[in-house]
Amino acid sequence: MNGPDSAAVKKYLLSLQSSICERLAAIDGTESFRTDSWDRPAGGGGVSRVIENGRVFEKGGVNFSHVTGDQMPPSATAHRPDLAGAPWEAMGVSLVLHPLNPYVPTSHANVRFFIATPANAEPVWWFGGGFDLTPYYGFKEDCVGWHKVAKQACAPFGDDVYPRYKRWCDEYFHIRHRQEPRGVGGLFYDDLNTGNFQQDFAFMQSVGDSFVEAYAPIVERRLDTPYGERERDFQLYRRGRYVEFNLVYDRGTLFGLQSGGRTESILMSMPPMARWDYDRQAEPGSPEAELTDYFLQDRDWLAEEAPE
Amino acid sequence: MNGPDSAAVKKYLLSLQSSICERLAAIDGTESFRTDSWDRPAGGGGVSRVIENGRVFEKGGVNFSHVTGDQMPPSATAHRPDLAGAPWEAMGVSLVLHPLNPYVPTSHANVRFFIATPANAEPVWWFGGGFDLTPYYGFKEDCVGWHKVAKQACAPFGDDVYPRYKRWCDEYFHIRHRQEPRGVGGLFYDDLNTGNFQQDFAFMQSVGDSFVEAYAPIVERRLDTPYGERERDFQLYRRGRYVEFNLVYDRGTLFGLQSGGRTESILMSMPPMARWDYDRQAEPGSPEAELTDYFLQDRDWLAEEAPE
Repeated sequence: MNGPDSAAVKKYLLSLQSSICERLAAIDGTESFRTDSWDRPAGGGGVSRVIENGRVFEKGGVNFSHVTGDQMPPSATAHRPDLAGAPWEAMGVSLVLHPLNPYVPTSHANVRFFIATPANAEPVWWFGGGFDLTPYYGFKEDCVGWHKVAKQACAPFGDDVYPRYKRWCDEYFHIRHRQEPRGVGGLFYDDLNTGNFQQDFAFMQSVGDSFVEAYAPIVERRLDTPYGERERDFQLYRRGRYVEFNLVYDRGTLFGLQSGGRTESILMSMPPMARWDYDRQAEPGSPEAELTDYFLQDRDWLAEEAPE
Repeated sequence: MNGPDSAAVKKYLLSLQSSICERLAAIDGTESFRTDSWDRPAGGGGVSRVIENGRVFEKGGVNFSHVTGDQMPPSATAHRPDLAGAPWEAMGVSLVLHPLNPYVPTSHANVRFFIATPANAEPVWWFGGGFDLTPYYGFKEDCVGWHKVAKQACAPFGDDVYPRYKRWCDEYFHIRHRQEPRGVGGLFYDDLNTGNFQQDFAFMQSVGDSFVEAYAPIVERRLDTPYGERERDFQLYRRGRYVEFNLVYDRGTLFGLQSGGRTESILMSMPPMARWDYDRQAEPGSPEAELTDYFLQDRDWLAEEAPE
């Protein structure tokens, strides 16, 4: 009864994909998410849902994928010889949203589940996921609100969960060659298996369901903020950092590209447009300088909230 | 007399950088290359020369760097234990030019020299380099002309040199996850040490000097071609492929970023602006489709030339 139930996880992931797309399309108001289903020749497939040129979302994708294999590849089992040759499944929902308005942050979320079922042993499984926020113009209120929801999502699972996964997020989404974080963080976890499948699955659901609760209020608060060429230009420039992180460091992206994943679905995370300028420096004290000087600093956002 | 002469290589590289910048600035006509010198804390430094927002070149950089170390790092000597702890120098000129007009191809060139001088043994050295062309709209005349100069640059060094380094270029500049070449190729070589320093240095000079002879006629032929939003949009989209190659596969870029190189100089190769569209497909038979269907195909360009 307490064994891993991948059918239940899959059902949840598909419903999560739908509900996120519905909610975001309602906010956008002009464009909805078109659906693109694909098969993976080696087993499994996915459903990509894509929005482009919306009033709010310039580009975004909410991907479901479920890939399967008859045998774990040797490269994946170097440290787990017990799994060599075992059938396996990996499934998840992964999303990136690139809003048009530079005052609305880009966001990313992912929840995933992996299971291998060796012939003569117990299944081996784990969960991973999280969500993180990448503003172009920072607002303390947005960062605090985002992290409040992240903390609430973790609260039923122990007091140490939020601080641990918050720190892991800061560590993971770090652009080493720029010596700066990709954004203002959130949650990141991997290899989660407490031994209690139901509890770990409930945590996936808590994180998955919380994403839109964390993101929607920020989008709604900022989407009508007037902006001009200066803000748009800065947004395009900062999106270059997003590209750099995803193509140089992001494990999911690199593993996907190297393992023959579906390129268009993997690179749905790329911004619709980005720019690079040589040695661009923000004017000291400007909102653009504040982004890196204050917001992108591995901060404890919940300690930043003004006392009531 | 026939030993390696790194001072002579350095002198050549600095003069190559100057002459390329002068020639390209003359073609541009409105902008010249500003100079940005930098030191590398661990030893050595470089001179970056950058053009931005020119009439012809939207962005381009011609970098000279000369980095030195007291001791070869262990990671670099795993297969060469004889070099462990040896003082070393690496120097080179590396350039990428992103023209504004979509009918003018992007180009890249690099020539480099490495030498390690163990205490009780002969110096170990090698050359590497090449140049390659990335059109957005293809012209057979440009591809043939480019490869003719490449072949001429190699001719004094043996009949097998051009075909060998042409093939190496096609293999190296391949975007695996797109299953397409980055461009129409050129030359690529590495680990070149025939035992004759003067000859190998002469080859570096032949490749270095040929770059602008190969590129300038193409730029001059295409720079006034009228274009509109369609061509510009396609150029920005294809530049996304350039970003993907450089950040996912290019050894120089990744090694530079990982080894604490100067990020702004390394990422000068990034285009000024790029775009990504989900699952974009060119209309069959259009010039945009012709780029991938005909031009990006690992072709023997010199066999494409019409018989006279």
